[in-house]
Amino acid sequence: MNLFSVQSAEFTGRHIGPNENDTKEMLNTIGIGSMEELIGRTVPAAIRMDHQLNLPASISEAAYLAMVKEISLKNKVYKNYIGQGYYDTHTPSVILRNIFESPGWYTQYTPYQAEIAQGRLESLLNYQTMVCDLTGLPLTNASLLDEATAAAEAMAMFFHTLNKDDNNITRPKFFVDHDVFAQTKDVVVTRATPLGIEVVFGDYRIADIDVTYFGALIQYPDAKGSVEDHRGFINAMHEAGGYVAMATDLLALTLLTSPGELGADVALGTAQRFGVPMGFGGPHAAFFATKDDFKRQIPGRIIGISIDAQGNRALRMALQTREQHIKREKATSNICTAQALLANMAAMYAVYHGPDGLTRIAKRVAALTQALGDSLVEAGFKLHSKNFFDTITVMVNDADVIRTKAEAHGINFRYHAANQVGISLDETTTAEDLMAIMSIFIDIDATVSLSLDEEMILEHIPTSLTRTSEFLTQHVFNAHHSETQMMRYIKMLENKDLSLNTSMISLGSCTMKLNAASEMMPLSQANWSKMHPFQPKDQTLGYEQMANELSAYLCEITAFDACSLQPNSGAQGEYAGLLTIRGYHESRGDSHRDVILIPISAHGTNPASAVMVGYKVVVVKALENGYIDVEDLKLKAAQHAANLAGIMITYPSTYGVYEETVKDITAIVHSYGGQVYMDGANMNAQVGLTAPGLIGADVCHLNLHKTFAIPHGGGGPGMGPICVRKHLAPFLPGHAEWAEGSDKPQHAVSAAPYGSASILLISYAYIRMLGPVGVRKATEYAILNANYMRARLQHDFDILYTGSGGTCAHEFIVDLRPFKKSAEIEASDVAKRLIDYGFHAPTMSFPVAGTIMIEPTESEDKAELDRFCDALLGIRAEIRAIEEGKMDRADNPLKNAPHTQAVVTADEWNHSYGRQQAAYPLPYVKNNKFWPSVARVNDTYGDRNLVCTCEPTESYMEA
Amino acid sequence: MNLFSVQSAEFTGRHIGPNENDTKEMLNTIGIGSMEELIGRTVPAAIRMDHQLNLPASISEAAYLAMVKEISLKNKVYKNYIGQGYYDTHTPSVILRNIFESPGWYTQYTPYQAEIAQGRLESLLNYQTMVCDLTGLPLTNASLLDEATAAAEAMAMFFHTLNKDDNNITRPKFFVDHDVFAQTKDVVVTRATPLGIEVVFGDYRIADIDVTYFGALIQYPDAKGSVEDHRGFINAMHEAGGYVAMATDLLALTLLTSPGELGADVALGTAQRFGVPMGFGGPHAAFFATKDDFKRQIPGRIIGISIDAQGNRALRMALQTREQHIKREKATSNICTAQALLANMAAMYAVYHGPDGLTRIAKRVAALTQALGDSLVEAGFKLHSKNFFDTITVMVNDADVIRTKAEAHGINFRYHAANQVGISLDETTTAEDLMAIMSIFIDIDATVSLSLDEEMILEHIPTSLTRTSEFLTQHVFNAHHSETQMMRYIKMLENKDLSLNTSMISLGSCTMKLNAASEMMPLSQANWSKMHPFQPKDQTLGYEQMANELSAYLCEITAFDACSLQPNSGAQGEYAGLLTIRGYHESRGDSHRDVILIPISAHGTNPASAVMVGYKVVVVKALENGYIDVEDLKLKAAQHAANLAGIMITYPSTYGVYEETVKDITAIVHSYGGQVYMDGANMNAQVGLTAPGLIGADVCHLNLHKTFAIPHGGGGPGMGPICVRKHLAPFLPGHAEWAEGSDKPQHAVSAAPYGSASILLISYAYIRMLGPVGVRKATEYAILNANYMRARLQHDFDILYTGSGGTCAHEFIVDLRPFKKSAEIEASDVAKRLIDYGFHAPTMSFPVAGTIMIEPTESEDKAELDRFCDALLGIRAEIRAIEEGKMDRADNPLKNAPHTQAVVTADEWNHSYGRQQAAYPLPYVKNNKFWPSVARVNDTYGDRNLVCTCEPTESYMEA
Repeated sequence: MNLFSVQSAEFTGRHIGPNENDTKEMLNTIGIGSMEELIGRTVPAAIRMDHQLNLPASISEAAYLAMVKEISLKNKVYKNYIGQGYYDTHTPSVILRNIFESPGWYTQYTPYQAEIAQGRLESLLNYQTMVCDLTGLPLTNASLLDEATAAAEAMAMFFHTLNKDDNNITRPKFFVDHDVFAQTKDVVVTRATPLGIEVVFGDYRIADIDVTYFGALIQYPDAKGSVEDHRGFINAMHEAGGYVAMATDLLALTLLTSPGELGADVALGTAQRFGVPMGFGGPHAAFFATKDDFKRQIPGRIIGISIDAQGNRALRMALQTREQHIKREKATSNICTAQALLANMAAMYAVYHGPDGLTRIAKRVAALTQALGDSLVEAGFKLHSKNFFDTITVMVNDADVIRTKAEAHGINFRYHAANQVGISLDETTTAEDLMAIMSIFIDIDATVSLSLDEEMILEHIPTSLTRTSEFLTQHVFNAHHSETQMMRYIKMLENKDLSLNTSMISLGSCTMKLNAASEMMPLSQANWSKMHPFQPKDQTLGYEQMANELSAYLCEITAFDACSLQPNSGAQGEYAGLLTIRGYHESRGDSHRDVILIPISAHGTNPASAVMVGYKVVVVKALENGYIDVEDLKLKAAQHAANLAGIMITYPSTYGVYEETVKDITAIVHSYGGQVYMDGANMNAQVGLTAPGLIGADVCHLNLHKTFAIPHGGGGPGMGPICVRKHLAPFLPGHAEWAEGSDKPQHAVSAAPYGSASILLISYAYIRMLGPVGVRKATEYAILNANYMRARLQHDFDILYTGSGGTCAHEFIVDLRPFKKSAEIEASDVAKRLIDYGFHAPTMSFPVAGTIMIEPTESEDKAELDRFCDALLGIRAEIRAIEEGKMDRADNPLKNAPHTQAVVTADEWNHSYGRQQAAYPLPYVKNNKFWPSVARVNDTYGDRNLVCTCEPTESYMEA
Repeated sequence: MNLFSVQSAEFTGRHIGPNENDTKEMLNTIGIGSMEELIGRTVPAAIRMDHQLNLPASISEAAYLAMVKEISLKNKVYKNYIGQGYYDTHTPSVILRNIFESPGWYTQYTPYQAEIAQGRLESLLNYQTMVCDLTGLPLTNASLLDEATAAAEAMAMFFHTLNKDDNNITRPKFFVDHDVFAQTKDVVVTRATPLGIEVVFGDYRIADIDVTYFGALIQYPDAKGSVEDHRGFINAMHEAGGYVAMATDLLALTLLTSPGELGADVALGTAQRFGVPMGFGGPHAAFFATKDDFKRQIPGRIIGISIDAQGNRALRMALQTREQHIKREKATSNICTAQALLANMAAMYAVYHGPDGLTRIAKRVAALTQALGDSLVEAGFKLHSKNFFDTITVMVNDADVIRTKAEAHGINFRYHAANQVGISLDETTTAEDLMAIMSIFIDIDATVSLSLDEEMILEHIPTSLTRTSEFLTQHVFNAHHSETQMMRYIKMLENKDLSLNTSMISLGSCTMKLNAASEMMPLSQANWSKMHPFQPKDQTLGYEQMANELSAYLCEITAFDACSLQPNSGAQGEYAGLLTIRGYHESRGDSHRDVILIPISAHGTNPASAVMVGYKVVVVKALENGYIDVEDLKLKAAQHAANLAGIMITYPSTYGVYEETVKDITAIVHSYGGQVYMDGANMNAQVGLTAPGLIGADVCHLNLHKTFAIPHGGGGPGMGPICVRKHLAPFLPGHAEWAEGSDKPQHAVSAAPYGSASILLISYAYIRMLGPVGVRKATEYAILNANYMRARLQHDFDILYTGSGGTCAHEFIVDLRPFKKSAEIEASDVAKRLIDYGFHAPTMSFPVAGTIMIEPTESEDKAELDRFCDALLGIRAEIRAIEEGKMDRADNPLKNAPHTQAVVTADEWNHSYGRQQAAYPLPYVKNNKFWPSVARVNDTYGDRNLVCTCEPTESYMEA
């Protein structure tokens, strides 16, 4: 081997778990001679890619880091006073280092196994508490994707609440104030159109609200910074029977009367400025708070308080029956995830600053804005509004003159119109910055008179809108204000959670592969993190280059022609992808095509997304072997021939099989004029071996947080770009910022042009460091690892659905249903018992109830796979003991799992098995025991008694 | 309050634990009305500083980070081919992120409490294994400070071994080959002179070795890159009865016959290029390996394998009786610490690459060097040597011409002489770099022919010196080569260790205060980390600025006139400080002054350092209240009047008291012509309230890792700059790199001009972010916190030595001796029981045997102090139960402490107390239980059976 080639390809060996020796042994166990043979037997020849991907050759981590640093220098770090939902912020170093840069936080999975996720659940509860307190509303979720989609979610929630019958829309209208952020307005229109909602833009002061309206969206402070008193408007809407959503700003709310107190039904916005870098648009956590009445309708995840099997306080996701994976085509939102990592950062920011600290920051920003506004007025300028918090809009003769001068000084403002310049200050603004701003507006030496006393009067916040209610009085927001306290609090929570730095998380369909440190590191660098998504294009050439190259790579990998990086989650990708199909049919005069075929095995998100674009879902049956029933498909396609919009398939299927029939399926749909949407959830089993373009799809989304190494962050962020064939390219999302002043709908699906742009870097790094050989090898090892586990487990468990070659794809399903009868053991007992063995459970009961779906990913090595197999085999032996009557059917380690320290170390022990058996069922567990911090969580209790914020300090102290 | 002032001073509130409310309550408990009153009662008026320190005002973390970024840009990141012990390296991102940037690793304390330090002990054992394997020698330590001092340590070890009688030196000579690194030669001379060692420089090939030599130092490969066969020289020295130390290079040793196999008695060098950034000189781990014969003489810490109370394998520091804190003036080295954090990084680098990976890296470097050398020869140049690994020395007509051209191209070479240019390649060198180098030497388009096959022959490494022996065959070096494996291994080890992110570490005299993330962050940035210490000064202006400013701050804080930042540990500072006293006396013709007074209560390092500068130690008694016995001092000073060199004092004293008599003491010594050395261990009780200059000292060292926030890194790095009064300034250390070609001794004490330069940034940040008010406040709160704990504990424990005002300084001593009699409880039982309560024990049995010394530091808040007090009071209650016969004298939770998971969860429980009592003695423990990973460690067993490397794989697997 050439020593340089070895060096360039080194990352592949770092990313992939098994080494050469492991590989041999594993193939041996499977009973297959070589990797080539395994792949040949697994991936149908008809769809195999016959060439190496045309991607740049792999480079070493060091070479990548040097290269991406060079690219970053093409991004200009200017002073950004653009605002519009994106503000510079100081991420406290203790949070940056210990959360954002800590794999203990960013590699966590969604907290489905609550017993080993109490740390981030507590932090998300803090987030919810912060949102509820600041907005003055009692109910919230654990974050949404961005402010614009949060507004669309509010609209949808109101719409469906007041229009129960799809066929009889009595209230079709939604009022949106002119001075809502432009990108929000655009996304609202995108989302309204397929549902038949009529969006009415106007000035809220003179709006003519009647009973045809189901709701309205207003902004507080608004896009131009004006702090308006919306009480009258809210009353009017309520009198007409409609609801009001208020887009707002958490920092402003420390000083302003809360939306809840003003009467709003929903308050929404972004928590970005609470310590989360702008990152050219994201990822950030959006918030969404509402009234208790919407308990069953609120979109997204809710963290709630419940109890565990010991009666102790325990947190978990509440009311999951609301969610899309349960409701499927009955769902009113397709949102699957949150922005957990960013919500946690924002919550920690509030914990670290506390109510007084937040208020001081807000006052400083307000005082600086006041000084700037007053000085400009003194200098003869007129302001758009006299009431403001952090943003003023200055009336000028020629905004272009200002712009030229400002940009020459490294300053960006917001240019609302030819004669309006918006200036948004933030917590990073200094007195010197004010001078620099003034000097853009006036030529003589500027003086700004600053009054910055803590007790000062904020003259531009009217008394009627001055906040008087308390917030964040709970213990947690008042106990961790030194860095030592904060560091320990973060660490204590981290240690409660099992993440990838402890052991494998084999979530079928979720792909918990390595998130390499070198992939993550650039995210912390200013030239990526401090970029505002609305900076002029000539300042963002680094991002443009990375985005263009990444788009090209994704097109090559999917064998498609065009790409949009905008969707900021997989579900968003589905939605955006279906919109391209819808757009295509409409462009051909086929607006009537509104039937979408979806196999029974599909993720619940598929039907939920389909409904959001106005499609009717027709379910296609599956055969016993898990394949799509082609005969049924033919039947359904023929039945709906005239109105067939398309089909949504997952490939390999959600059963973990490469169906040989896939090209028949796509051909049938095409033959009826339908389009084929491919769900990218299992794309990691295709890369380099086949491609959506090769199986006959027209559009697909890619879960960059699955296949392309973006970490799951404990439940978000994700990214869901879509790739399409040429004929669908015209229907990809646009963005208001790219529209050069046009006020036509741009069909944006996210607030920012490239969604959560900064994390695209992770996938970019992944592809660059692995290269064409490495990405294919990753796919091959994902298949090898799954088949090795299957081979080790198949004698003791029923493995469902293998392909015709007897192999599985990158994941496989283990049937646990027989144990229900033989030993009264449920899948959940196995899942909880796995915790005692030190493992996170695989995917539960999807796609088949009573089973687990295991996806090891390529990053796990043989030793870890063996430990996991040993754990499952150990559990099987325990079940056998129950079956054989050697262990009690009620009092056994599975039913009592997971076993906490409190239980195992209790002075009393009244079980029919021993403590060692409970906690250390296998020798390897002793080396690295991971303890659940609560016993089995009681979901029902918490759902019956929904509490989604921290208890007041008094009750907390008692507990 | 002005909102900007609040912002600028914000860091003070982050650094200091107690908030305003806490402060009030704590003063109340102490029974004192205000902070001013507490300080007034504690610090003697006669020495109080009457002004605010003249330091720059505090700035916020964000402002500091922006400022230090600006300064960093004054450092030029060039391609450095300078070599001489400093090489660019790729720090694997997984190690950078999870060790270097992780408080779980860098905030650890020295592993004195082995039961909660098994993680880093394992890593240090890996380090030792790596060193032993590569050097081919069986015994090593857990690292030394740098290569130059390691060489001096070898010299001292040989010297003392062969010259047992100080008064009859039969072998005074030490041979040093010309081609040893210049900085090493200089430090060797510095260290040799006071001991009466005659250093003889020469060419080893023609050296005339006889029985007057006790040893020699040679370098392999040498300073000019030549790989020489030293077998003949080693034999000659052995025949003369002397020893040979070989300075060498770990990467080269993967390809070269090991020093052990060549017959060397010591192999030493730096492990820097194993993934540790250059950082302008440090910190890095030096290695030192030797033969078993030197088991009792080897300097530094040794990690060894022993067993715990359950008979399980357990690691801990071995043979501590060798060390200076035990041997005091009998010690032959004053080294107290290691470079643990850096040794861990280097060890992890070896774990991650494994033997094959290391060899590949070495081969790549050697092959590139070969290609470069051959191409230069082909182009008509002559090389200094034909045998080389990574370094060639090119004979040129005019090195200045090359230099000018090279620097214009951003390249640094080593300029040995007017006609010799040294070029050292490293793992970061690429084929493109070779072209760039060639183009400096020849004007036409350079071509370099590269042969880089893994199996290629390295033509410039002679067969006789080609390595044939295996290395790093142990499991750990062959099991963690994927990033996932590596991340989990690092995490598993981290989780075994209690660090500051878990709970307070109240080590008296060690000052475990906050190491703020903002203080640490710049260290990862290339403009600080990639700087070679021998780059020309005009490229290092950022470092110069920072160093100059920091020097000025330290002078202001100490009330002294000049500063040297060179000593890279506290002990080095003592040594350097005493050398200034020695130099001063010599300059006045007072070379006979060689008596140093040292109070009985002094750290053992004081007498050890004194002996190293050739001083005779005379001990001064203490009074019952812990004060220095002034009458005894007078007596001793008078007795030794003629030969009095000075006194070494610690202030506040090691008993934790501000002696009012300190000015009398310094005056007495001065009156006899002596100089006053102040040990800076307790400087954190002085900053802003008094100063060494105010108490009458002439010189002091500052433990930047105690007072000025450098983390302890699990046992290093540290920094020990010294400050002096004007008259001592001429005697501060110089450095060969500053000597402009002079070959006179420069009196350097460390390898690099500014010692471990990069971590000076941490102290710089600390002072800039706290400002004059903040640093004083830190001192005040250190005193408040200690007095609060004293007040809470004083009713249940005897507190030794409070000042005349009834208060203690920043630490205090709790007497545990009475319990020996009343309950057969030793101090160590209390220390180990504290682990069960979740705490690291305070300093044990220093300065008084049978006691603990508690230093909470200012960074701990009241809640944490209360938990610690509750723990000690809980233990007191347990002791009382024994005293009262309610608990068994042999079988009680103290004697059996610490309790591991294995013990507490065992199926059998045969103790007279319950499991809950064992593991959760107080309610707070349940919230955040920290488990020891082994039971009480048996020191004797391990010392009797010294094993300081990993067991071979086979035995490991059995275990």
